[in-house]
Amino acid sequence: MRAIRRLGLGDAAFPPLLAAIHDPPPQLFLRGGGEVELLAGPAVAVVGARSCSAYGRSVARSLGRELAAAGLVVVSGLARGIDGEAHRGALEAGGATVAVLGCGIDRDYPAAHAELARRIRERGLVVSEYEPGVEPAPWRFPARNRIIAGLCAATVVVEARERSGALITADFALEEGRDVLAVPGEITSALSAGTNALLRLGAAPVTRAEDVLELYGLVPEPAQTGPVGPVAAALLERLEEGALTADELVRAAGVDPAQASAALLELELAGRVAVADGVYRVAV
Amino acid sequence: MRAIRRLGLGDAAFPPLLAAIHDPPPQLFLRGGGEVELLAGPAVAVVGARSCSAYGRSVARSLGRELAAAGLVVVSGLARGIDGEAHRGALEAGGATVAVLGCGIDRDYPAAHAELARRIRERGLVVSEYEPGVEPAPWRFPARNRIIAGLCAATVVVEARERSGALITADFALEEGRDVLAVPGEITSALSAGTNALLRLGAAPVTRAEDVLELYGLVPEPAQTGPVGPVAAALLERLEEGALTADELVRAAGVDPAQASAALLELELAGRVAVADGVYRVAV
Repeated sequence: MRAIRRLGLGDAAFPPLLAAIHDPPPQLFLRGGGEVELLAGPAVAVVGARSCSAYGRSVARSLGRELAAAGLVVVSGLARGIDGEAHRGALEAGGATVAVLGCGIDRDYPAAHAELARRIRERGLVVSEYEPGVEPAPWRFPARNRIIAGLCAATVVVEARERSGALITADFALEEGRDVLAVPGEITSALSAGTNALLRLGAAPVTRAEDVLELYGLVPEPAQTGPVGPVAAALLERLEEGALTADELVRAAGVDPAQASAALLELELAGRVAVADGVYRVAV
Repeated sequence: MRAIRRLGLGDAAFPPLLAAIHDPPPQLFLRGGGEVELLAGPAVAVVGARSCSAYGRSVARSLGRELAAAGLVVVSGLARGIDGEAHRGALEAGGATVAVLGCGIDRDYPAAHAELARRIRERGLVVSEYEPGVEPAPWRFPARNRIIAGLCAATVVVEARERSGALITADFALEEGRDVLAVPGEITSALSAGTNALLRLGAAPVTRAEDVLELYGLVPEPAQTGPVGPVAAALLERLEEGALTADELVRAAGVDPAQASAALLELELAGRVAVADGVYRVAV
């Protein structure tokens, strides 16, 4: 295992975007197999609520995957919910992802994400301004959020309540003149109150990965629009009308349940649909 | 029953906002108990998909109710789906609403909305540029949409697919320099693709009735935030997390089913929740 590395603010390798913020960290600890250059590459923050909905989970995963596949480094906070799904999506795409901790660089926090952190460290990086041994503390998370926003040219908020920590990340990004984007959600869901409020304040809406990629002058991976089998096609058509559980989907599409299972797996592996909490949605 | 009235473009009573559009109708037929002045009052178009989702239906109803309660005339196209719900919401609030037809003023189209049209005519107006006897025809609906947009200072699109007729109404409004607003929805739903695309193009997001009312310098009816019983409060708290069926809600809130029924009815009558297709949501 590669040793923990340390970058000082004055070091040539210190990420330039992070060095440019109003209150940069004096040092950054790095852990993982990724090169330091990862932190200087085109990066996007994908953040949001810890207790998110199946919708948010599914969108975060799809966005993480598409943005990483197109060559962006996906930066997030390793938290439960949106953060974790964004990291997972990036890993699924075979991309590198960066997790910024709000505790000492040697800590596995949250414990439930120890295995995810290990996978991130294989080719990506876990980073923190806190030296080994520093305990997680609530007041360190806003500070951590300034690093997430600071490393990135743009911050995407996938799902957030009003007064959510993810909005603090968005505020940091705005203050530094970085782009802030938000994923629209139903106005009757408290979990989209923060993101919809960002839209009201002028954040750009993200309705597909391209909305983010064009800020970086990147083109998306060729769209996954190849032919699928007739059962998969019938399922896709229904899902475009809205999210459904597998049972609802089979009934609505009027297909054979066994064939539907195989077709859903095919669609999931092809990145055409995403499932979260048993609810299927078309991938974004 | 009051006779059909006719307004010529040059008449003093012809609605001024409609007279100001690029291609105003040469005449407008009026049917119903409402006064001509209704067409000159502060009016808002609330439009959207015919085959809408339960989300769209619920939001259209709530918005129609809140906007009418605050004193706006709610204008729509009497179509199935969003249009019909917007009219119904306005009627529920005891407000006047205006339906613009794409066929002769004497026609009941769509037939399924004959009773709704009758209720609209009690104190509101049904209007059309087409004289009695003119049949509905697909190409008349875009023409009708310019009248809906033309009568109003702002157009709100609640739910719309890409290339939806409601987007034509929004285009007319934009061309005339009127305000266009869109209700955000899930980016994985085809029914919100049109509305989210409007947001991308710069339409203002509507997350609550106030977002519309402030354009008119109006303040909303005092918020319905009075105390409710403990069961109702528990149900409201769950619904703020997202839409649920009555069964799901009872399970999630862990309340007695019989008490839940009474509490849901209480909340619905108080305008605190809206139900569509058996799915409950907090009212906007």
